[in-house]
Formats: sequence, structure tokens, C-alpha cells
Amino acid sequence: MTVTSKSIIEDIKKKNPNINRVIFTGCGASMADLYPGYYFVAHESKKMLSAIMQANEFNYDTPKDVGENTIVITASLGGTTPESIAATKHARELGAHVVTLSHDESSPIVKEAEYQLIHGFEKDYANKTAKMTLALNLAVEIVNQFEGYEYYDEAQTAFNGLFDLINHEANMVTPAAEEFAEKYKDDKTIYVLGSGATAGAAYSTASFLFMEMQWITAPTIHSGEFFHGPFELALKDTPYLLFVNDGPTRHLDARALEFMQRFDAKITVIDAKDHNLASIASNNVIDYFNPMLITGVMRVYAEKLSEARKHPLTQRRYMWKLENY
Amino acid sequence: MTVTSKSIIEDIKKKNPNINRVIFTGCGASMADLYPGYYFVAHESKKMLSAIMQANEFNYDTPKDVGENTIVITASLGGTTPESIAATKHARELGAHVVTLSHDESSPIVKEAEYQLIHGFEKDYANKTAKMTLALNLAVEIVNQFEGYEYYDEAQTAFNGLFDLINHEANMVTPAAEEFAEKYKDDKTIYVLGSGATAGAAYSTASFLFMEMQWITAPTIHSGEFFHGPFELALKDTPYLLFVNDGPTRHLDARALEFMQRFDAKITVIDAKDHNLASIASNNVIDYFNPMLITGVMRVYAEKLSEARKHPLTQRRYMWKLENY
Repeated sequence: MTVTSKSIIEDIKKKNPNINRVIFTGCGASMADLYPGYYFVAHESKKMLSAIMQANEFNYDTPKDVGENTIVITASLGGTTPESIAATKHARELGAHVVTLSHDESSPIVKEAEYQLIHGFEKDYANKTAKMTLALNLAVEIVNQFEGYEYYDEAQTAFNGLFDLINHEANMVTPAAEEFAEKYKDDKTIYVLGSGATAGAAYSTASFLFMEMQWITAPTIHSGEFFHGPFELALKDTPYLLFVNDGPTRHLDARALEFMQRFDAKITVIDAKDHNLASIASNNVIDYFNPMLITGVMRVYAEKLSEARKHPLTQRRYMWKLENY
Repeated sequence: MTVTSKSIIEDIKKKNPNINRVIFTGCGASMADLYPGYYFVAHESKKMLSAIMQANEFNYDTPKDVGENTIVITASLGGTTPESIAATKHARELGAHVVTLSHDESSPIVKEAEYQLIHGFEKDYANKTAKMTLALNLAVEIVNQFEGYEYYDEAQTAFNGLFDLINHEANMVTPAAEEFAEKYKDDKTIYVLGSGATAGAAYSTASFLFMEMQWITAPTIHSGEFFHGPFELALKDTPYLLFVNDGPTRHLDARALEFMQRFDAKITVIDAKDHNLASIASNNVIDYFNPMLITGVMRVYAEKLSEARKHPLTQRRYMWKLENY
């Protein structure tokens, strides 16, 4: 039988029907990829304690009572991130049920976990969001199997249509991505905004695509927080990248956009509505599918920026070079 | 009878002994001030669902099942933040028990809440952390009264000593704060790092003291996340401000410091150990008291920076000036 999110959660439920906590933990982009799963549980569950934690914070300051009633979901793209491997081991030692998401089936993190879901990455733009999609999928299974999720079928419809939509939309945005790259290629700072389930994708874009991979300073700003401080930096030509959700928090994003426009800032918007998210996702579930679509499309923007700046996305000063830190 | 965190939670428990969820919600610095309370519940509670949410995200994308079994804690310094007032009303309409923290007893948010705790601010450095301290105090009462907290007495000892310690330490740091101000006054970007219960204080310092009040670009970086991307920007003289906890996540902060030193970055450290946090807080509770001590001391650094830059902390482009946004 193929192992799926569904079969894994069924198996855990057979062993322990009293699961009452879900912790999502990882490092960097892999932690950010868990955010939509966390956001789903935090919004839809009526009985699960939930948290998303940096893996080393989980290791050094583990919440009390993590144990047999806890599901811990860890992730590492290459499967070799030491803190995430340690978190996987630590969670198992505490008796938790540990599922890991990795691109490499023979990696150390996969060996340490009780359950593994191996995902794609290189194949196409949709696969750039495979880890994120699996994290959400696990979250939906957890809530549905342990307490029931009214919109489970609608969520499955959205999952079924997601990858084709991402690839279709990513292939449409080349001109917009080139325009973005040309406009932002000399910027030393880009502010990245998002809200709702997409807050993790904003963090990931700022911290990893921009800071790690392009060496551009990039604060992440929650769209709702913009008005409570960071908007003081909005001037003519201040460079912003704004993710706009189709779903309940759309107002927060749109309000930030209006303010930026009012002061003639330099603005690029990636809007899930422009990319037809509603064609696959009903109103009841659309919220949670924004980050995958936006991340898939954003990848094209990042590639074009990298080309315009002649700075490969794979270029590092320290990662893969230094051995001890 | 004086209303205290303790009496409020006792009253809620009398009305409903089945509380199973705590949500902390606010905007900007007031949301960040709730973080230590959230962090406490997330780490110490075995049965409470907990979350910290931007107030407008709470308003537009409210978690399912918020109601009579939920305590919602809101905060607004001046008590007039529209989204936080709306969150307070919204939570009450859903039947939740709502406690608000404000500096102004006659403010709109205070009128909307069922329970109010009015706190100081101007008096001294300790009072700059009064809201944060009350949020933690409420969190300790919630966990202790609903499920028991083994180290309750040790936490009370720390609360009792906290304000004197903050004022004592804040009054000692003038020379260090002046040195910081002189060194950083021309920087356009400062990266702010912290971990554990102090992650909210790092966010607050970066987003509000620096971005809002000094118009300096300031990404917040979790000390554990530093190594998974943002450290690629660490070069000679890159400006960092690092909060170092005395407690379980100290290793994360110290590891970031070592890396910055290795590449000769420009580093300022505010270390709770230098400021004698262990003199009031036992190992079992010390974690949660770092953000108050560090925030109190940091205020002196911010004031000195403001003076060196001749940019008052009260100067705004938009807040208090624009009426519609």
C-alpha cells in the first residue's frame, strides 16, 4: 500500500486515538513550509493544541507534556539539517508520533522518523510547494480523522487541482516576473508582506529567497501589522512585494496595498485572485491554499530576479562551505 | 477588592471551569508585549489550546469554536487601536471571556472588555514592561488555576523582584547605551536577534523602536533561524543587535554571537545574565522573565540612539497625523 498522509494518520490513530497536540517544527524554509499546516490546525481544530516552533527551540525548550499524545511533524528538504534531525530524534524519545517530510528518501532525518513522506522539488513549479502541500494535507487528515472536518471533500478537490493550477499560472507570469526583476534588481532592501496562511510564505520569500539566496535585506511584515509601525518607512519608491490572498484576510492585504499606492511606493503584487485560486478552491477552504499558489508563482519572480542580478539562487557565502558553526 | 490577574482568572473559573483555549491578540508593540504570556501557555500548559494572533487576523479569520470556553487577552497601550477594539468586541460577541490590558482606564478598549487591567508606562523603565508583565502574570494564573503550575511560587518570587531589578539595571547601562548609539547612529539597517520568550521583544525592538520610531530598516531574526539563511548577510561590520537569554535557549543566542564574532560583524549584545536575572528568577521560571528585563534595558539603548540621531522616539510620518487608512 502506498503511504499517504491519510494512511499515516490512520495508523497513528489506531495506536492512539487520544492525540491532543500537533507540533510543527523545522528550520528556515522547511519550517516556513510547515506554516500552512499549522495555520489550518490552529484555525480548524477544536481540541488539538498546536504550535509551530524553530527546531532548535523545540530541542532546547520543549513544551511540557510532549509525548504519546502528540504528533510532531518535522521537515528538511535535503534531510541533513542537524537541528531538525535532533528534533526528530528528541520527539521520538519523548514518545511522540513523528512524521517527517523530505525530498531525499535515504537522508538521516528520514531514518530517524517513524513515518516519512518523500516529496518532489526539481520537477516543476508545483513541486516547489510539495512539502508545504503535504504539511497542509497532514493537518487536514489530523483534524478530519480525530474530530471531523466539515469541508474535507472540498479540501480534496482543491488538493487535486492545485498542482496543475500552479504550473499553469507559473508559466503565465514570465513577463510580469521579468518586469519585477528589472524594477528591483538594484534594490538593497525589499519589504515583503502577507497575511493569513500566507504569512509563512512571506517570511520564506524575505528570509530565504531574498536574504539567503540574493543577499538583499528583507524584513517580513504581516499585512495587518504594517499599519502599527512599519508603514512609517513607506515613501515614494520604497520597494515592497505584497502577497494578496483570496480569502478571509484579503482585506488586510488590500488595505496595505492602498496605503502603499497613496504614497507612490514601488509595489509588486502577487494576488491569488489574479491566479484563479477560486477555480479549484471553495470559499470554505480557499484560505489555506493561497501560500502554495503564491509560492509557486513567486519562484518565477525569484528566478528572474536572480538572472537580472547575475546572482544564482544557489550562491552561498557560508552554507555548504563552512563545516563548523 | 483590588482587581488582579489572579482575581480575574478566579472569577472566570467560577463562571466556567471548562476553559480550554487562550488567545492573545493585539497590534504592533501591544501584540508583541503579549508574546511572553503566549510563550508561557504554549510551553507549560498540558490542556489549553493557545495562539497569538494579529488582531485584524483574529477579526477576519477567527479560529473555529472561539466561545465560552475561550479566554481572549487583548491589549492596547492608549486603548484606541481600532482593530484591537474590534477584536475585543468580536471575542465578547462570540461568548469568550475577554481581559484587556491598557494604560488608559477611560479608553474605548477598556469599555469593551469584560475585565480590565490598567498598567503604568511613563513612570520608569520597569513600567515600560508593565503590559508584558501583566500578560505573563495572566498566563501563569490561567495555567495554575486551571491545571496547576508546579513553579507558581518561584514565578511569584520573580514577579516580586522584577521591577526593582529592571530599574536597577536600566540605570546602570547608560555608558553602554551611549556606546551603542554612537556606533549605530549612521546605520540604515540593524538586524535584531532573539529566541525563546524573548522572540517577541526582538520583533518589537526591530519593528517599533527601529522601523517605526527611528525609520531604520530592521529585520527580526530568530537566533535559531540565523543559520538557515540570514547569516549569509553577516560580513565585517554588518550591524547586529542580539538579545541573549539566561535560560534554556541561551545556546541558540550564544551560537549566533560566535558566528558574528568570527566574521567581525558590528555586534551589540544585551544579555540577561549580565543583568543578573538569576538573582530574582529560579532555573524553573527564568525563561519567561528574560523579555521584560531585556526590554527595560533596551529602552535606554533606544533613547540614546534617538538622541544621537536627533530623531525623537515620538516622531511619526503617518501615525497620529493621517485619519483614514
